[in-house]
Amino acid sequence: MVTQNRINGVDVDRLVATVQAIQADPNLARFRFRAHTDWVSGGNAKTRIQGFYGAGQEDTSRAAPFTLEGDEPPVLLGSNRGPNAVEAVLHALASCLAVGFVYNAAARGIRVEALEFDLEGDLDLQGFLGLSDEVRPGYEGLTVRYRVKADAPREKVVELCDYVQKTSPVLDIIRNPVPVKVVLEG
Amino acid sequence: MVTQNRINGVDVDRLVATVQAIQADPNLARFRFRAHTDWVSGGNAKTRIQGFYGAGQEDTSRAAPFTLEGDEPPVLLGSNRGPNAVEAVLHALASCLAVGFVYNAAARGIRVEALEFDLEGDLDLQGFLGLSDEVRPGYEGLTVRYRVKADAPREKVVELCDYVQKTSPVLDIIRNPVPVKVVLEG
Repeated sequence: MVTQNRINGVDVDRLVATVQAIQADPNLARFRFRAHTDWVSGGNAKTRIQGFYGAGQEDTSRAAPFTLEGDEPPVLLGSNRGPNAVEAVLHALASCLAVGFVYNAAARGIRVEALEFDLEGDLDLQGFLGLSDEVRPGYEGLTVRYRVKADAPREKVVELCDYVQKTSPVLDIIRNPVPVKVVLEG
Repeated sequence: MVTQNRINGVDVDRLVATVQAIQADPNLARFRFRAHTDWVSGGNAKTRIQGFYGAGQEDTSRAAPFTLEGDEPPVLLGSNRGPNAVEAVLHALASCLAVGFVYNAAARGIRVEALEFDLEGDLDLQGFLGLSDEVRPGYEGLTVRYRVKADAPREKVVELCDYVQKTSPVLDIIRNPVPVKVVLEG
């Protein structure tokens, strides 16, 4: 009987095999993620996410697209059909840190029992409304607080947190500039 | 009978009143958005988003929290319970651009019939996996293609697109650095 070497719900043997495959052929590390978004009405838009390219091929594992709904609350003239765009950024950041923490914990043999995040971000609406050139439209700053229960001493958890911060895709996207090309078609 | 002055599903009178209220008291523009995320298992995490502070008070308009699910696809050792974190970033960006475009169109009296976005982002997994110090963990670059049907000549649409890019919170967050404080509690 073959038993999987699972820690934290992560198949560690496959994780190691994935890392080795990419070390042997770095082209396998190239991913292209995609999304399609349709505006509905007012502040409401719907995003569908399904296929992507990665590990040398087009992924077909998702039988149906995920649908994400974005909207504004009434105070921002919307109808609360979903979280707004800057709230979705908080979700993206936390879900990225969770994956990074848990996968790297598994790779180090650390068992995680619980992991939770509280995020907050300050934003001055004068930027979005074009009322001030001195106020940026986006977050002035974000704070992420997290709590972990794991079978490792605190210094190992701190070391892991530091490593996760260095390698988190979404934390990098938020902390550092990413070039974005916006093209109007038609 | 009072009829609302609605364009694109946006109450334009309230939009104008909101801008005027903030011009009179810029403190009303200060918002603090929040999210709470619990790791579930493997690549899966759940985010709840409900309250926020803004316009001088705690918002209570959402009777229940929105729940967003994040996960990885099998090729990235997850179980496809939701889009992954960098895909969620694409949703955040498009839903932000949609709101910006439609609200500002409404303010300018431009009627939008349809608006859709195709986004893609390139990412080299060697950064996340810690296999190279020269590869950043996040997106190397994003491309947003959008198509608009509106009752305005093309140059007005282009002008609006330019303005939206200058004032989009999520585009700013992605294009420019945002300080993020990560605090391990307990």
